[in-house]
Amino acid sequence: MPAQERSAAVVAQYPDELRLEVERYLEQLRFSQEPATDGLHEAMRYSLLAGGKRIRPVLALATARAIGWQPAQVMPLAAALELIHTYSLIHDDLPAMDDDDLRRGRPTCHVRYGEDVAILAGDGLYAEAFNLVLSRQEGEPRNIIAAARELAAATGVTGMVGGQYLDIAEAAPPGPDGLRRLHELKTGRLIGASVDCVLLLAGTPEPATIAYRSFAAELGVLFQIVDDILDVTGNQTALGKAPHSDERLGKRTYVSEFGLERARELAAESHHNARAALEQAAPDGAARELEQVTDFVYTRSS
Amino acid sequence: MPAQERSAAVVAQYPDELRLEVERYLEQLRFSQEPATDGLHEAMRYSLLAGGKRIRPVLALATARAIGWQPAQVMPLAAALELIHTYSLIHDDLPAMDDDDLRRGRPTCHVRYGEDVAILAGDGLYAEAFNLVLSRQEGEPRNIIAAARELAAATGVTGMVGGQYLDIAEAAPPGPDGLRRLHELKTGRLIGASVDCVLLLAGTPEPATIAYRSFAAELGVLFQIVDDILDVTGNQTALGKAPHSDERLGKRTYVSEFGLERARELAAESHHNARAALEQAAPDGAARELEQVTDFVYTRSS
Repeated sequence: MPAQERSAAVVAQYPDELRLEVERYLEQLRFSQEPATDGLHEAMRYSLLAGGKRIRPVLALATARAIGWQPAQVMPLAAALELIHTYSLIHDDLPAMDDDDLRRGRPTCHVRYGEDVAILAGDGLYAEAFNLVLSRQEGEPRNIIAAARELAAATGVTGMVGGQYLDIAEAAPPGPDGLRRLHELKTGRLIGASVDCVLLLAGTPEPATIAYRSFAAELGVLFQIVDDILDVTGNQTALGKAPHSDERLGKRTYVSEFGLERARELAAESHHNARAALEQAAPDGAARELEQVTDFVYTRSS
Repeated sequence: MPAQERSAAVVAQYPDELRLEVERYLEQLRFSQEPATDGLHEAMRYSLLAGGKRIRPVLALATARAIGWQPAQVMPLAAALELIHTYSLIHDDLPAMDDDDLRRGRPTCHVRYGEDVAILAGDGLYAEAFNLVLSRQEGEPRNIIAAARELAAATGVTGMVGGQYLDIAEAAPPGPDGLRRLHELKTGRLIGASVDCVLLLAGTPEPATIAYRSFAAELGVLFQIVDDILDVTGNQTALGKAPHSDERLGKRTYVSEFGLERARELAAESHHNARAALEQAAPDGAARELEQVTDFVYTRSS
């Protein structure tokens, strides 16, 4: 769906400066100096460096700026979010899961390197994400622990992995609440963690975090509604993957649950709510880049 | 190979009291209160509670005792080691990896719950391992970070996942050094971490840790040599899995590299070295349970 159809008022300017900083940081990561594991390293980098908007790390950097930190100060944490996201894509694409051949316009990791290497590339990225936060992230030790703990909780049974289970096992409760819960876990928690972990790392006291947290939760919902819409309306070139894969897999989506028109309305509502929460979190306009990401998530075409 | 063939002098008394403490702790772990993810939870517990000697957590508890801590003080860390070990078994057993149907005398996780759920059960156990250490482990925050970092490093590209890659991709350098390196990464690093993480958690100063570390490294080697011997000489009932699987998969083992007799000699040497390092680490006999584990690893028949 073209941007102007969703909302003529919104012009999406993505904070590309932050995205490029992420890109540079990811590019220079080396997970091992040992030549024997070069093949594994290559598979990990193949998927990690396939481009994309880097929404999760950019959110982390933008949150840092909003609370008065330098983006560079949270880069290891930000990069860890992208490593984890990439790991989840690799595992979700596996033949035993969604069986996708194409991702970001290129063959998926298992198509390129084989299923066994793809499983390990995912496992490796997940391990190296924790390694990165626990080795390179600056901050109060107590706060680093809190941020890393949130990273684990957001990606375990109460987060991403739990949500992926609800999806593949069709185990979510019926109705809109079940659908919402599925996505809260599967994608919402990690998007929320992209904001939350930075607040935890900074030791931001409770009252100030509430509005940020409701912003992050709403952004997760918005992201998923638009994702579901794009699966129906997008084309393969823009998406970088086959459209209609939700339908092919018989997945429950905002479109299958509500129809396309209502899904679009829900996206507009969600965008409105996310912006309102952000206004409350950072009323002085300090969250300019978070606003940009929010608008981009709403108006993106891929 | 029966114990007496390997060394008549060694009588292996396993510290079962510690094992039972681990068992009880693992049994009461709940990863989520959400009914919708019960099926995932069940698959995780199916593999986690399948018995076994709990060598890694018992090593952690025994190390705690050796340095004057209460075993119970390191239980979250100890349990995390077993969660990670279980995750690695689930992923290693997958059809795309070693394709094993039997583990600890029962159908493997993917045979019982399907490949998709098994992949997620492994992913979930890894996440919950970090969650456990970062939520429940007591200690100085700096030291908790050091222990968790070692856990990540020992299980990522420079550890377990890297070693599994060398194994499945046959990417280890040729000769005994390559074989040793493969096993150092694949099994040695996590066994070493079972000792090392406790020292890091306790903030044990450098000189005292050197002998412990060389003990742990040697124990990892011993574990693997005996494992390779048992794959040739063991029977399915005792092993709880099909013997000769290394041969079936064309894997490089201490037996394929050196022959059975030389492998037995290497095991005896390695056992001797491990006990000597332990004597140096804890000359006052404080490491009684570590000695027992070492002897058990040497003389075990499964």
